Amino acid sequence: MPITDPQGLSATLQLAFELIRRPSVTPDDLGCQALMIERLERLGFQIERLPFGDVENFWATHGHHGPVLAFAGHTDVVPSGPHVHWETPPFEPCIDDEGMLRGRGSADMKGSLAAMITAVERFVSAHPDHHGRIAFLITSDEEGPAVDGTRAVVEHLRERNERLDYCIVGEPSSTDALGDVIKNGRRGSLGGVLHVRGIQGHVAYPHLARNPIHQALPALDALVREHWDSGNDFFPATSFQISNLRAGTGATNVIPGDVEVVFNFRFSTEVTHEQLRSRTEAILDAHGLEYQLDWTLNGEPFLTAEGELVEAALHGVEAVLGRQPQLSTSGGTSDGRFIATLGSQVVELGPRNATIHQANECVRAADLDDLSQVYEAILAKLFVNGTAQP
Amino acid sequence: MPITDPQGLSATLQLAFELIRRPSVTPDDLGCQALMIERLERLGFQIERLPFGDVENFWATHGHHGPVLAFAGHTDVVPSGPHVHWETPPFEPCIDDEGMLRGRGSADMKGSLAAMITAVERFVSAHPDHHGRIAFLITSDEEGPAVDGTRAVVEHLRERNERLDYCIVGEPSSTDALGDVIKNGRRGSLGGVLHVRGIQGHVAYPHLARNPIHQALPALDALVREHWDSGNDFFPATSFQISNLRAGTGATNVIPGDVEVVFNFRFSTEVTHEQLRSRTEAILDAHGLEYQLDWTLNGEPFLTAEGELVEAALHGVEAVLGRQPQLSTSGGTSDGRFIATLGSQVVELGPRNATIHQANECVRAADLDDLSQVYEAILAKLFVNGTAQP
Ligand SMILES: [Zn+2]
Ligand SMILES: [Zn+2]
Repeated sequence: MPITDPQGLSATLQLAFELIRRPSVTPDDLGCQALMIERLERLGFQIERLPFGDVENFWATHGHHGPVLAFAGHTDVVPSGPHVHWETPPFEPCIDDEGMLRGRGSADMKGSLAAMITAVERFVSAHPDHHGRIAFLITSDEEGPAVDGTRAVVEHLRERNERLDYCIVGEPSSTDALGDVIKNGRRGSLGGVLHVRGIQGHVAYPHLARNPIHQALPALDALVREHWDSGNDFFPATSFQISNLRAGTGATNVIPGDVEVVFNFRFSTEVTHEQLRSRTEAILDAHGLEYQLDWTLNGEPFLTAEGELVEAALHGVEAVLGRQPQLSTSGGTSDGRFIATLGSQVVELGPRNATIHQANECVRAADLDDLSQVYEAILAKLFVNGTAQP
Repeated sequence: MPITDPQGLSATLQLAFELIRRPSVTPDDLGCQALMIERLERLGFQIERLPFGDVENFWATHGHHGPVLAFAGHTDVVPSGPHVHWETPPFEPCIDDEGMLRGRGSADMKGSLAAMITAVERFVSAHPDHHGRIAFLITSDEEGPAVDGTRAVVEHLRERNERLDYCIVGEPSSTDALGDVIKNGRRGSLGGVLHVRGIQGHVAYPHLARNPIHQALPALDALVREHWDSGNDFFPATSFQISNLRAGTGATNVIPGDVEVVFNFRFSTEVTHEQLRSRTEAILDAHGLEYQLDWTLNGEPFLTAEGELVEAALHGVEAVLGRQPQLSTSGGTSDGRFIATLGSQVVELGPRNATIHQANECVRAADLDDLSQVYEAILAKLFVNGTAQP
């Protein structure tokens, strides 16, 4: 029988139940942050609510001196999609017979939020006068446009020269077992929308037209074949992918006047986005195309190659789980890209990501208790055993 | 003041008015063929109505022995589009102050139909015992799918071994002045719909996906660069054009699983459609693509390089208009592609095509009277002066 009543469960799982029950689809928070704030206020945290637009955010700190370790995360979740695809209702958390906590957000990332809160509760109770400062940076828009969320909070912190030495983002970084992967960076993401212009006409009179598809083909092939860089010890080689192509009126006998190409770079720290732009445009120019190209920089790459935070995270996982995590920069972008601009050391450490953004999202319930232990061990390593740089 | 009352106009223009007044958008005939049949029956023509599906067609003959000259054409017109784009209502014919007969179908090709009928009326009245046989092959679906129209009638004629030596299609062949261009053939048209399959994935994990756009680019570029043939005295080189491209989910971070490419060959008599197919597939195979390719043969090329009909048509234009027509095979397909399969000599000769399929379609009213004279001169050349081969 699935467990639907959280009474009797661990504090972490009880809080996870309460968070999942709130259908806080981006950018809605629906009281999730209030739940967290209530717990943090009880611990003596200073709370600063930082709403921007329709996005709720907060910044909270505990302690008065020394380096700052922030737990970062989001209370918003992606839509559930049709409920018929779910074996259990997405916003009615339960623990099934296999011990899986089920529900939208269980893995991404309300489980992590619950683990952070309980870790800090235990740590502050045991070490009320801990070294350093503990912070929370929580948003309700990570899964959406992500403009008024972490990005805006970071700009606010930057303006007042707030210190942020270390940041643990609770994104589900683990692959096959809790803690097997810690992300210590992410590639950059640069998007382009290219319009190549030709001259529309009838296929029977090609000499009166200029087929923009024909013109674009060798240029696009050259972009695909280009060796952008070789990556480095931390990043795979920069990759170029065309995601969308569109040309044509639908009629089979009309040469279109325009072709639209949507592409994306995931780039390493070996190139800058400025270099990618100018090299792309040079290739297009060399092919004599008449084009318009609109760029969107989704995120710069960031990397925490080494340091006290990475050491503490590796130590925490090993101490609690007896496992050697792998450091990785793979995968999509995360809010780490904004936080890293403050010069902070950033790692992402959370539960397994196998089911995120899918129907029947779930996470091993015991993993959340373990994750809370890992977070607490990291706090202890940095702020009790004195790894942190004063 | 525009002329809206046909009384007092020539017989050709009166009939053109009556035909244009019927909004016979494909496949509707709306009594146009009945009008023609009534006139032909009065002349002693044998009429055979040949409806197929929702398409009305007829075959009519006059005379009992010798070679057959058929006038071929269509009573259907393309839609008018929004009437607001028309200076005069599309189905209310009038002759404007510049002497232009206005209305949908005036140029394509109700004007030609009227000219054919009056030419035959004068010719048969003057030569009731003419040599040869005169025929009409009329359909109400040339502008649409063209399956149950001329193609079906031709199959019917083929089955009973009907003789068809010469065919004048009334399509608007003229460019700058009536009779300046006679089409003595058309290129073939072969269409292809290509699906290249890859493996869908996330742009952040390109090693788990296979981008079908990237795979297709060099193959498509090779098809564009391929020298299919050099054409010949009558045809330009075979041309390959991509008309439509579609790939992508719309999301900028998803590598699509499939790309669709729609392309079209316009081909000369120097290659066969079988050769084009196998050469295309060889290029795709050489690029190692996983693909599906569906072909549609829209029409084989046809050519009447020389012969009595071409001679008579050149003579007719020169005698009536004092103009040397140019023989051409340019432009799209026409019902001539079906008729030519009977082994007939085929030419297309009609008014100027500058406004066809557009708003404000029109034709010089005097050109229709001249066209009727040209058709009559061709009849005389073939069936009175005895050019036609018995
Ligand atoms: Zn997340
Ligand atoms: Zn036509």
